[in-house]
Amino acid sequence: MCPTCNGKSNDSTAVESAPNPALKSQYETKYDPKKILNDPEFKILSQGDSELQDKKLNIACAYDEKHNIKMIKKPIPKAREGEVVIRIRATGICGSDVHFWKHGQIGPTMIVTDTCGSGHESAGEIIEIGENVKQWKVGDRVAIECGVPCGQADCDMCRTGRYNACPRVVFFSTPPYHGTLTRYHAHPASWVHKLPDNLSYEEGSLCEPLAVALAGMERAGVQLGDPVLICGAGPIGLITLIAAHAAGCYPIIITDLQESRLDFAKTLVKNVKTLQIERNWSSQETANKIKELGKEHNTNIKLAMECTGFESSITAAIHSVVFGGKVFVIGVGPSEQKYPFGYCSANEIDLQYQYRYANQYPKAIRLVEGGLIDLKPLVTHRFPLNKAVDAFHVAADPTQGAIKVQIQDLD
Amino acid sequence: MCPTCNGKSNDSTAVESAPNPALKSQYETKYDPKKILNDPEFKILSQGDSELQDKKLNIACAYDEKHNIKMIKKPIPKAREGEVVIRIRATGICGSDVHFWKHGQIGPTMIVTDTCGSGHESAGEIIEIGENVKQWKVGDRVAIECGVPCGQADCDMCRTGRYNACPRVVFFSTPPYHGTLTRYHAHPASWVHKLPDNLSYEEGSLCEPLAVALAGMERAGVQLGDPVLICGAGPIGLITLIAAHAAGCYPIIITDLQESRLDFAKTLVKNVKTLQIERNWSSQETANKIKELGKEHNTNIKLAMECTGFESSITAAIHSVVFGGKVFVIGVGPSEQKYPFGYCSANEIDLQYQYRYANQYPKAIRLVEGGLIDLKPLVTHRFPLNKAVDAFHVAADPTQGAIKVQIQDLD
Amino acid sequence: MCPTCNGKSNDSTAVESAPNPALKSQYETKYDPKKILNDPEFKILSQGDSELQDKKLNIACAYDEKHNIKMIKKPIPKAREGEVVIRIRATGICGSDVHFWKHGQIGPTMIVTDTCGSGHESAGEIIEIGENVKQWKVGDRVAIECGVPCGQADCDMCRTGRYNACPRVVFFSTPPYHGTLTRYHAHPASWVHKLPDNLSYEEGSLCEPLAVALAGMERAGVQLGDPVLICGAGPIGLITLIAAHAAGCYPIIITDLQESRLDFAKTLVKNVKTLQIERNWSSQETANKIKELGKEHNTNIKLAMECTGFESSITAAIHSVVFGGKVFVIGVGPSEQKYPFGYCSANEIDLQYQYRYANQYPKAIRLVEGGLIDLKPLVTHRFPLNKAVDAFHVAADPTQGAIKVQIQDLD
Amino acid sequence: MCPTCNGKSNDSTAVESAPNPALKSQYETKYDPKKILNDPEFKILSQGDSELQDKKLNIACAYDEKHNIKMIKKPIPKAREGEVVIRIRATGICGSDVHFWKHGQIGPTMIVTDTCGSGHESAGEIIEIGENVKQWKVGDRVAIECGVPCGQADCDMCRTGRYNACPRVVFFSTPPYHGTLTRYHAHPASWVHKLPDNLSYEEGSLCEPLAVALAGMERAGVQLGDPVLICGAGPIGLITLIAAHAAGCYPIIITDLQESRLDFAKTLVKNVKTLQIERNWSSQETANKIKELGKEHNTNIKLAMECTGFESSITAAIHSVVFGGKVFVIGVGPSEQKYPFGYCSANEIDLQYQYRYANQYPKAIRLVEGGLIDLKPLVTHRFPLNKAVDAFHVAADPTQGAIKVQIQDLD
Repeated sequence: MCPTCNGKSNDSTAVESAPNPALKSQYETKYDPKKILNDPEFKILSQGDSELQDKKLNIACAYDEKHNIKMIKKPIPKAREGEVVIRIRATGICGSDVHFWKHGQIGPTMIVTDTCGSGHESAGEIIEIGENVKQWKVGDRVAIECGVPCGQADCDMCRTGRYNACPRVVFFSTPPYHGTLTRYHAHPASWVHKLPDNLSYEEGSLCEPLAVALAGMERAGVQLGDPVLICGAGPIGLITLIAAHAAGCYPIIITDLQESRLDFAKTLVKNVKTLQIERNWSSQETANKIKELGKEHNTNIKLAMECTGFESSITAAIHSVVFGGKVFVIGVGPSEQKYPFGYCSANEIDLQYQYRYANQYPKAIRLVEGGLIDLKPLVTHRFPLNKAVDAFHVAADPTQGAIKVQIQDLD
Repeated sequence: MCPTCNGKSNDSTAVESAPNPALKSQYETKYDPKKILNDPEFKILSQGDSELQDKKLNIACAYDEKHNIKMIKKPIPKAREGEVVIRIRATGICGSDVHFWKHGQIGPTMIVTDTCGSGHESAGEIIEIGENVKQWKVGDRVAIECGVPCGQADCDMCRTGRYNACPRVVFFSTPPYHGTLTRYHAHPASWVHKLPDNLSYEEGSLCEPLAVALAGMERAGVQLGDPVLICGAGPIGLITLIAAHAAGCYPIIITDLQESRLDFAKTLVKNVKTLQIERNWSSQETANKIKELGKEHNTNIKLAMECTGFESSITAAIHSVVFGGKVFVIGVGPSEQKYPFGYCSANEIDLQYQYRYANQYPKAIRLVEGGLIDLKPLVTHRFPLNKAVDAFHVAADPTQGAIKVQIQDLD
Repeated sequence: MCPTCNGKSNDSTAVESAPNPALKSQYETKYDPKKILNDPEFKILSQGDSELQDKKLNIACAYDEKHNIKMIKKPIPKAREGEVVIRIRATGICGSDVHFWKHGQIGPTMIVTDTCGSGHESAGEIIEIGENVKQWKVGDRVAIECGVPCGQADCDMCRTGRYNACPRVVFFSTPPYHGTLTRYHAHPASWVHKLPDNLSYEEGSLCEPLAVALAGMERAGVQLGDPVLICGAGPIGLITLIAAHAAGCYPIIITDLQESRLDFAKTLVKNVKTLQIERNWSSQETANKIKELGKEHNTNIKLAMECTGFESSITAAIHSVVFGGKVFVIGVGPSEQKYPFGYCSANEIDLQYQYRYANQYPKAIRLVEGGLIDLKPLVTHRFPLNKAVDAFHVAADPTQGAIKVQIQDLD
Repeated sequence: MCPTCNGKSNDSTAVESAPNPALKSQYETKYDPKKILNDPEFKILSQGDSELQDKKLNIACAYDEKHNIKMIKKPIPKAREGEVVIRIRATGICGSDVHFWKHGQIGPTMIVTDTCGSGHESAGEIIEIGENVKQWKVGDRVAIECGVPCGQADCDMCRTGRYNACPRVVFFSTPPYHGTLTRYHAHPASWVHKLPDNLSYEEGSLCEPLAVALAGMERAGVQLGDPVLICGAGPIGLITLIAAHAAGCYPIIITDLQESRLDFAKTLVKNVKTLQIERNWSSQETANKIKELGKEHNTNIKLAMECTGFESSITAAIHSVVFGGKVFVIGVGPSEQKYPFGYCSANEIDLQYQYRYANQYPKAIRLVEGGLIDLKPLVTHRFPLNKAVDAFHVAADPTQGAIKVQIQDLD
């Protein structure tokens, strides 16, 4: 899997809890991508097309089944019952966006089979209100939660609060549903979140990857004073670092193969301990060095937040934590892996995993509003919407040193 | 109960889990107070006695059954097998110290029946090492954990890790065991904790009340982004405030009757929300104002850390939290109280309580070492050891505005 | 509060988490009681009215604001979109039904202000299917979950899986919504649960009080081998007893004031230990006797399931459990009570409460299907539907020794 | 690893939490095996030696570094301070005993380097009491907890209640410490557990493997009504089956390769569902069949108790549980294994492991005493002490169909 990819993949075999398939979610129908692809206004744009310059049109950036990344023109949506239409102002590129472009697939079931709009880290401004929408008004600034679960009572996952596992979810930008890297987007009114005045659209869009990290930390049970290892200093690793610091974890040790990323980590959290891993180290060697760093603070490591998904890194994390410790994997990696069963068994190591997030947006926004978490330093590159294809090329090129690439469409 | 008292009281009826009473703890024998009281060197000192000026003598501050607070002279202890002798350098006065002086009793069983040395918030320097002590050397700087449990395999509480509940515990300064507000103190080598170089003795001694707050927060399950109410801005309330801020709680609302304490709170945590409670408010009125403060951040309150122990404050806390919320009481109050059963029942409010602490010292020290928690601003008054009686009078006088009074014996 | 009442009361002050009130639940509109009360077919029946004998009519048993219990005739509902119509076959009388009749109110907001149909422990047969209902067919036998939450994404409680706290809930039989002690009832198709072949309608209806007990036990964290105290041998206490036995709790001690109830308890669970409480015992005396019973099995009590809601019983439960133990209150009692704060504080006693239930029906049905729980012995009295008023009089009369009174309408 | 082995192996690399090694446990010294091996009374016995018939001698069964299983004669121990001497009456053979004999090693550090007495599932009668032992008297019948942790305050694991992880543990029968398959054994008085009158010595000895299963179930959080998969119908799988049934799990599905074991399982728990796995099935095929069995009871599987330690079985377990489910591994297997990372990640599957047990004996004894768990049917073979070598040969031979082989020394 793509090394920059820390986004979460869906795995169709996951969803064995599927409720009655005859009861389709209203959203699956509402956001049927064929309505866009078959619309007379739909058009695949070429570089230089004038539509790219027309601020009134609904342009978007899409991947397709032939591994193209391209600009398209879509109809401007109307707000239906229960919907708002949002003028998207800021969108971040996620590793999974790049992965869909380059590899056309994440997991066994999420497959790009046609032109599909990208982007799910977005914030914008409400410009139209549908019927029966009482809680919003035109001009409200919002972050968009892109995974819209069915919410039906016959869905075990929705009914028990784990809506990230809803088998009927519409997740914008996950094929076949078009994403939010576009100018105008219609969204269920209940799945957008008000931005406080002191949050920019950029920060609002960054609340999406923050929600991933917060979901992992909440389920990992991170508490004040926990000594924590973070594996990987990519976007999710760095956001997890910022969040772990805000949660009062200490010491925090972060690892990566690249010195530059670790240097970047130090600019985010001054007293983080960094360990640059060399490719020829065994996992146990890596673990021993990590444990030595813990000993400098007279502590064992009880929790590793694994943000790479690589077998060697997960194995090192397992060997790093103390008896009864936990390795919590946020990162995505190869679907089959080896791991040190004997060590886990003899040390009661808990392994846990995170799939997307549920109920995290309000907390994410609150933490940024209160100044406890500052995500702005993560944005290394910014592009206008009509240059979104360039943005993707930067995001996909490791030599560019991008952490978070943003597309902004502010005026 | 004394309004400044946030220390924890023992309640003899608590300990129904008592293992075989014939198997006394080694510590109960070792620290038998009669050995001190019957020693020929033991002497009750009067103001002006020259012993108070002699830096080589082991003077201490003690309460007695007639509600006196006084200086005494004790023999200088020798390090026995498994012990270290510590030159105490800094000791804080706890509300329970004042309470033992003024009221002679906490709970039904902790009764001052003779002269009993005070103080259990101490740090100092190791000056002598007993037989079989391998982990320490003379000169090591340590914080002292004053509750020494039996550690015997037949003690359910010790064997299951809840050693704060050990029925055979020797808790120095809880009658009949002499405390650590003294110059020389012999202590089991396993129950002292190394101070990192960047911690002063004063900070080391402040780790004791910090341990109380951390124990409560750990058991309350405080997590990043939790909206938290703190009731009471006394020493434990303020330490809880600092710790909750370090844990990334947001928003944090703190209440008190006194404006000055709330002003002090704001100097500790800039963006804390304060609510000065008026005595004529009903608990529901107070709760409504608290909930309004939460609404300013678009959130309900899920957790209240109650640090007063007063019925009206606990009741307000219960009414402040949302369905499924929790009121965690660290404060100590009247042994029988009224509470809103109907509201708890209809809202699934969890009530929990903290009794002393277990396994908190290493974390407390780590958090101060890492700069996540700064306790120094809490110290409002400092006295030399031979003026400890004056220190007690300041600590007991609400008009003095003391938060934490320290006795220091540095040279 | 009525001593037989172990049902849960709503407390309007509970619901401070109310989402936008403008967004009313579809069910609040659908089940508006005025539609029934204003229907031309609606009629209050008198003893001897021929309608009572007509098996084709939709008769029901209702309470009103003048503390009458009476039979009524209602229109036969039609299955609307998403609904099924159920021919009710068995309904149990709950303490809360009796309480609404006798006292007209539970908690500050659930007030009988007009004729309101009773009953929420029901099972029956599906006789009609509404549009878009795919999972049911005519003839399916089902238990009815009577609390129908809004399920809307803007409702924190629904979205996080605690739907029993939904502020927009329609709970049939809780004023103003008519109950299921009737012949024909229209219900949302997603809120009925299939009865396996080996469950009778009677057992299906008993799954409702079982759901209450199971919710409490799940949240209390009951595990195999836990020594458990059950306070009160009324319907909920006895169901909790059966469930605790099925969960492998041992020993189980049950208390009550009445010897006959304790004798009944022994017929349900042979090796239960019983303690008949005398009214002149102090809570501590009661607790000491309970602890002695535990000692016979060489154990402390770690968990009390309190099923009376009485202050004296809750206090005894608190004094009965060991340091770190838990008192979990299912019972409903006076809205303000005294409790031993000091003992809770010095012993870290957790207090928790249950309000109705969420996600318990499938488990309840499974346990009965598997033979792990047998509820049939609880039914002491059975009445036909047209004698429902008599059934209420038996249920309300302590001298009748009723545990569970059932109304059955089988042919 | 040996297919019959469900005992737990130690892994020296596990114990990174080692406290100061200079502070050796008193037990490490007390039970130094050299004292036995160098004793003039020590003798390796040959078949036919008369000592084997002499009921007064302390004979034992031992393995050695050359993969012999043999009888030895040892000195009869005297009760030292804090000890009792026990006349062992019943001992079960564990898979790990067989493994030490056949393979000489479990994990990287537990290595048979000399003659080492076997057996750690024992019960017997106290025949001598050491100094300071107050809780026992001669004639008391006890089960023996064979893992004796250091209990020292500087040991994180002991101090926090996870004493199974104590790095200084003396575990009798784990090299180099001699086991309890002997006639006379000296043991710390605090680490034996009183047998109620209605428990036989055989049942007392079976409490050891029961403790393993209970530890796993407690940490897995098994609750009433949980649908559970048990992988493997060997001794630990079958005990877990009995315990899961006692805990009210339903449905319970058990898998194995051998039909005879599954038939045996049905004699233990009548309504268990069995699935005989065929070697050519993929893990997903196996999982699909398991899920179908769950569907027969209208439920997903939320928890798998994995009792084989085999990669294919663990993989099937992972694929069998629903989103958010858990696979709890009690079984021991190859130290490195492959697993379906992608499925775990996309389905938030928790993986947990059990290492020995802590604080389980009192509960195990209580459950047998109360009749909730009946272990007697597990014993398929019984031998006298002087035929212990034969017993080992039966236990090691899969064609014998042994579940639990007991050595009894009753007169």
